[in-house]
Amino acid sequence: MENAVAARTAEKFSYGMKREIACGFDEAVERTREALKGEGFGVLSEIRMDEKLKEKLGVDFRKYVILGACNPPLAHQAVGEEIDLGLLLPCNVIVYEADDAAKSVVSVIDAAAMMSVVDNDKLASVAGRVNEKLNRALDAI
Amino acid sequence: MENAVAARTAEKFSYGMKREIACGFDEAVERTREALKGEGFGVLSEIRMDEKLKEKLGVDFRKYVILGACNPPLAHQAVGEEIDLGLLLPCNVIVYEADDAAKSVVSVIDAAAMMSVVDNDKLASVAGRVNEKLNRALDAI
Repeated sequence: MENAVAARTAEKFSYGMKREIACGFDEAVERTREALKGEGFGVLSEIRMDEKLKEKLGVDFRKYVILGACNPPLAHQAVGEEIDLGLLLPCNVIVYEADDAAKSVVSVIDAAAMMSVVDNDKLASVAGRVNEKLNRALDAI
Repeated sequence: MENAVAARTAEKFSYGMKREIACGFDEAVERTREALKGEGFGVLSEIRMDEKLKEKLGVDFRKYVILGACNPPLAHQAVGEEIDLGLLLPCNVIVYEADDAAKSVVSVIDAAAMMSVVDNDKLASVAGRVNEKLNRALDAI
């Protein structure tokens, strides 16, 4: 039920898609990892922005993690097609505390928007398949 | 001398800038890390694409690393300006074996090109400052 409601509130923006999830940060991160796994994405990197900003600048920032998600067959196809494409990998998925800390926001990159900066038509279909998977994962959280 | 020659061979492309470096992969990665550090970038993530592709798909791929570089004050400014901007962070720098494995290629993202997908004029100056730093780091390797 919660998923059905949340899916109706998904918001598309110029470089991604996001949803507010009715749970705290830690649970949202766990559910996001599971949903990504269900679509064949491994999480290859994890950066806690708030912890890094505290450590490096001494500033407070809401809980915020950048997960680097990678679907190996699609990544292999992409770098095989264009050797420098690693500059746009992995596909980022972020989770952060909502203004109401009892809720969280999950936001996934729009791979097709990212690929628009690359002059290679063969990558459009790869980006489309990545987006289908990321959007299904976002729906499943 | 080597830097001067290499700088003349730097190649700009639609989403980045790259240079061939006259040394093997491991040394190139080390020199890249040092150059990034010299411009205030920490490396927050490191993904060995070739090792991941071998592990997940059993395929051989040239040595290839994705370094996630972050300049804390600029990253803080960027996510403060636009909360979902973490989808485009950190700034990727990749190092991979050239076709001649005695040489390596270092490629840095064009932050301004990436920011073109974001509808927020205030980020243009941040992207410009990131590019200045990344390009100086590329020259210094």
